[in-house]
Formats: sequence, structure tokens, C-alpha cells
Amino acid sequence: MPISSSTDPILLLQSLLKCRSVTPADDGALGIVASILEEMGFIVTLLHFGPAESPTPNLYARLGAGKPHLCFAGHTDVVPPGGNWSHDPFSGEIDGSYIYGRGAADMKGGIACFLAAIARYLKENPLKGSLSLLITGDEEGPAHFGTKKVLQWMETQGEIPDFCLLGEPTNPQEMGEVIKIGRRGSLNATITIKGMQGHVAYPHLADNPVHKLIPLLQALTQDPLDQGSEWFAPSSLQITSIDVGNKATNVIPAQAEIKLNIRFNDLHSGSSLSAWLKELVERHAAGSEIDISVSGEAFLTKPGMFVEHISKAVEDVTGRKPRLDTGGGTSDARFITHYCPVAEFGLVGATMHKSDECVSLSSLESLTRIYQNILQRLGL
Amino acid sequence: MPISSSTDPILLLQSLLKCRSVTPADDGALGIVASILEEMGFIVTLLHFGPAESPTPNLYARLGAGKPHLCFAGHTDVVPPGGNWSHDPFSGEIDGSYIYGRGAADMKGGIACFLAAIARYLKENPLKGSLSLLITGDEEGPAHFGTKKVLQWMETQGEIPDFCLLGEPTNPQEMGEVIKIGRRGSLNATITIKGMQGHVAYPHLADNPVHKLIPLLQALTQDPLDQGSEWFAPSSLQITSIDVGNKATNVIPAQAEIKLNIRFNDLHSGSSLSAWLKELVERHAAGSEIDISVSGEAFLTKPGMFVEHISKAVEDVTGRKPRLDTGGGTSDARFITHYCPVAEFGLVGATMHKSDECVSLSSLESLTRIYQNILQRLGL
Repeated sequence: MPISSSTDPILLLQSLLKCRSVTPADDGALGIVASILEEMGFIVTLLHFGPAESPTPNLYARLGAGKPHLCFAGHTDVVPPGGNWSHDPFSGEIDGSYIYGRGAADMKGGIACFLAAIARYLKENPLKGSLSLLITGDEEGPAHFGTKKVLQWMETQGEIPDFCLLGEPTNPQEMGEVIKIGRRGSLNATITIKGMQGHVAYPHLADNPVHKLIPLLQALTQDPLDQGSEWFAPSSLQITSIDVGNKATNVIPAQAEIKLNIRFNDLHSGSSLSAWLKELVERHAAGSEIDISVSGEAFLTKPGMFVEHISKAVEDVTGRKPRLDTGGGTSDARFITHYCPVAEFGLVGATMHKSDECVSLSSLESLTRIYQNILQRLGL
Repeated sequence: MPISSSTDPILLLQSLLKCRSVTPADDGALGIVASILEEMGFIVTLLHFGPAESPTPNLYARLGAGKPHLCFAGHTDVVPPGGNWSHDPFSGEIDGSYIYGRGAADMKGGIACFLAAIARYLKENPLKGSLSLLITGDEEGPAHFGTKKVLQWMETQGEIPDFCLLGEPTNPQEMGEVIKIGRRGSLNATITIKGMQGHVAYPHLADNPVHKLIPLLQALTQDPLDQGSEWFAPSSLQITSIDVGNKATNVIPAQAEIKLNIRFNDLHSGSSLSAWLKELVERHAAGSEIDISVSGEAFLTKPGMFVEHISKAVEDVTGRKPRLDTGGGTSDARFITHYCPVAEFGLVGATMHKSDECVSLSSLESLTRIYQNILQRLGL
């Protein structure tokens, strides 16, 4: 693809949407990104991590040696299309003022806009700072060998940037609504309550684990974890499953299992919540087993110069002052925050993960201008 | 089998144990009972109820036309043998002072003793009253086409007895410990709590059915149903299962299911408990579905002349004054109680439903004498 066309985010997005890059497949998506960046003078490194038989593909590309160093992060993998599409999910079809395809919003569109923004910026400005891109092929999957591993590699290469902009679709309905400056943490726990099996007619000879879990369930859910903090909504604990699997109506079962998830703000950490859970289990259902897995800590990029520049760029292009938000699910920003300030801004996510995922052609142009405006404001 | 040997409960039991009459199979068991009774002069009617392709076999036999009329009730079907036997479960093997086999205690042994008791009684006494036997081939199964249907048939034939003695193994450890004069009722309920599925990161857009069940579980279990009554232990409610079946850690599920069983005494009825359950569900989890099935009402045969005769007979033979009890599981006495006073007395049930089910040879002789003593005391 000639560099002339890489100023057009629509053409760039169409070529990416044609790749069937459902995690863990790549189907040439990273190759397209690599060739466009190489044409613009970037030094591109393809990085494969994980098991030799099915390594995860990642890309790191760098242009310039000056300060500041801005890194754009994203992913070319997408979730499976599912059914009920009225457009081919892998053709990049334009219908009216929308472009359709799996990944249009999440987040091949964000990558296309950033590539177009660099092309436009470099045509008009000599690069004073440094630009890099960290693009992974595994954000929608386990993410063990994606962004996390690339960051570790970048650290060994002295490639840690001053700021990172992640191109996830942060806007719920309209372009310019939301910049994400942090994310809640997420913890999963499985609690296995042991009892002693027996006949329902002789409960004194048994120990019903289902009855033992009632005070524990109460203790887990009766009080809110907190009232929220300056930048975060209140933390939330959800019991996601209780399972006994006892089909016999005359039998008291031997054990019961509770599964729960906590989405927590910056007033907690994975370890503080683990200690709290263990204490509650010990108090209300002593002898139970608890298995805890922290999939991400809460983090916050405190509003400052970097976030302010993004916000002003959004306002310049859309006329809308974006809200600074920390809600929603997790993203690869949970890995990046350990290395540098990170903020997220991208397209409108209303159709992400659904059938007929699409973005408007005008939002692609807006986002390209916003990204170019950010480069300008950061003095790159 | 000649009538001479039918005064020996051991020989009678051995012939019954050789039939592999695991519900719904009969394997000749009722035929053996029928031929012995016919030899003693009984008019035997074989009654098949239920679907034509697999009817349930039952037997009703009657001797004499006088008063009083005592009916002995029992079942020839047995539960599956399961594994880990050190004796063939279907051979009637005698080892030391015990006879082994599935159904030895529950309750081919009781039937053998009653047959032997009749044979001995008729040798020594002219029959003044009437004797009948109601033997079913489906007590361990669904019991839809067993004792319940035979009783309906008996009513149409004018065959309702004055008293009924059910030969279930009522003694926990030693011969003569317990006469059952009633049973608790049993009720099963399934409560399905509806919510609205959603993502754990956005609980305000979902309605978690697991959280809605917590106050309901509390209300169901916080207070005892009662403190017991004159002849009954306190009623007991056991939650036997809670199931959601949600494997996704990031999903709030759409529904949750509670299963419970209540064993209730004569302070409650199936309908009073159903109303109580429905009211609690409406109060704590409105909109939930509840499905209730009452498998037996609580009943009591108030101690009087009939129970007193059984008690004295036990004391005469064993020297032990039996306890009058209403505990344990359900039995076919729940059907009989609607027609006449019913009491239960049989062998020692310690090994029933277990591997190596057995009864002592001496307990067979004791029970035969007790049954004969009851016939005498009732003036048959």
C-alpha cells in the first residue's frame, strides 16, 4: 500500500478488516501494519512469545530518538464474529455512512486512525520526539504472551515511553464522550464449603454445607465494599455462581461451591481483598477452601499534562469536553500502567463484540484528527 | 414348598432371597408368597396396576371372614445390591449366625417371619377373625402402582382391615427396640429465581438472581419450624442443592435454583407448608417460580389397644419394652393410614440398603414368635 493512501483511515481499516484475525489467528493483520510503518521509516520488530507450536505474534515499531516518546498501543486480534450479521464480518463493507466488520470499533479502527494520523503529521512536521507502536495479536484471549511480554522486552531494550495512548473504543455512544484514565481491578474467587453427606431424614448425622454457606453469602454481600473514590465508582462484588449439583431429593450433599468476582477501585488491592475474603471464610465457614485469582489491579493515571492534551484535542475536533472515566471491563492498560502513564481513547464502542459491529465514516475522520492533534500538542 | 417347612422363617427367607427382585423386577418372589398362602387356604389375588408394557405386580390374600381383620403389609422388591459384598446378594447364604442377601432386613425377612407365624398359629388355633396380606412389588421405586392402588382396590372389594401391621425393619440395632406408630411427612420444593443476565463490570445493567436468593435462604433456615410435638421430633428443612451453572467469571447469570426437602411432623401439613413457602418466596424473591411436591403427609396411629398388643408381644418375646417412634424416612404406611390404624414392626435395619445386608438367625425366630404372639393377643 503506497504511503499516499495511508493518510486515509477508511482504506487502512478496510485492509485490516479483511484479515480473519480471530484470537489466536493473525491472518496477515500485523504484516499490513508492519509494511505501512516501514514505509514511513519506522524500525519494525516482530516479536513472538509463548509456546513454540503456537507463538503469539506482536509488533513493536519505533521512529525517532528525541523526547518526548509517545507509544500508541493496540491489538489486531478480534473476538469471533458469532451469527446474525447483515454484512460480511470480514469484508470491510461500507453501507451508507458506516463501515462494517468484526474489529471495526474494537480496535482495528483505532489502529487505522493512528496510522493515518502519523502519516498526516509526518507530511506536515519534522519529528522532534519519538513515536512507537505496541500492537499485539492477543488482547481478546488469555493475553499471557501479548502486551505484557512486549513491555518486558521493551524495558530490556530501553524502549519505555514517556506516555502511552491505548486506542480502545472508549466512547459509549458518541465520539468524544469519554477518556479512560484508569480501570478497576478484577478478582475471581472460588470457595468450596465442605460438609458431611447424609440422608435428609437424619440431618443430625450429617453436616449440610449449603446451610453453612448462608451466613458467608450474607457477610459477603451485606455491606458495600466502599462508597467510591475521587476517580472511581464504588467497588462491586458479584456472586456469579453457586453450585451443589445434588440431584437426589433425599440426600444432604457433601459440598457446595461459591464463585464470585470483585471489580475494585483504588481503595483496594488484590492482596487486601484476598485477606478480607479469607478472614470472612474463616469466620463463617471455617475449613472451607478458597482459591483466588487476581486478573488485574486497579490503576489510575492521575489527570495532568498528558490527559489534559488528549482532552483538549478531543474538544478541538468534536466540540465536546470528554468525561474522565475509570469504569468498564479490563484492558491491556493494566499492564502498561506499571511502566508509564497510560490513557485510553478511541472510537465508539456501542457495537463491539456484537453482530454488525460498525463505526461511522465520520468518526474515523474525527479520531484521525484527534490523534494528529495530540501529536501536535505533545510537541512530537 | 410343603406347608411343614413354612413354619421355618429361615427356609422361607432363603427362597425369597434367591429371587433377583430389584424394583421393578419380581423374578418369582410374589409367586412364592402366593403358593405358600394358597397352601394355607388363603384366597390369593394377583393385581397388576400401571402401564400395560410394565405393570407393577402386587398380591392380596385373605383367609377367614370373622372379626377382627388384621392385614399384614410388606414388599418383596429390593434396592440394587451395589458393590463390595463378601456374600452373594442373591443366594440366601448363611455364614455363622447370620443370613445374608439383599432384602434380608428390608423386608423379605419380615414377610418370611409373618408367613411362618401364620403357619404356626393356624396349627394351634382355629381362626376366629380374618387375616390378609398386602404385598407389593414396588415400594423401593416410585410406588405409584403398589400399595396405594391395592388399597383403592381393597376398598371397592370391602376388604379394608381393622388394623394393619407393616413389617418394615424398625429396630435400629437390637431386636425389640422400636415400634413405629407414625412417620413424618415429606415435601420437596424447587424454587427458580429469575434475574437478568449481564456483565459483572456493569452490575447496574443486570439483576443478579444469586443475590436475590440470599434473603430467601436466610428466611427459610433462620428459625426452626417447630419444637416437636407429643409423638414427633422437630420438623427439619434441608436445602439440598443450589445450582446456577455459570462457568463464565465475568457474567452475572440469568437464574438460580434452590432445591429443598422438609420432613415435617403432625403440626404441619403439605398444604400449610406449601402456603408458608409461597409466602416467603413472594416476600423475599417476588416473581420466582416454585414447584412443590408432597410425597407424604405426617401421620400418627395414636397409641391404643392395637399398639399396646404389639408392644406387649415384643416385651414377651425379647424382654425389652419397645420405644414408640415416628422418625426416619417414609414407608407405605403413609398410604395405609388413610384406611385404618397402622403400626410398623420388623427386623433390625442396621444393614438395610448397604452391602452385606443381613439379619441374625435368632432375630428371625424372635420376630416369628412376636408376630404369632400378636395374632394370639388380637384374638384372631
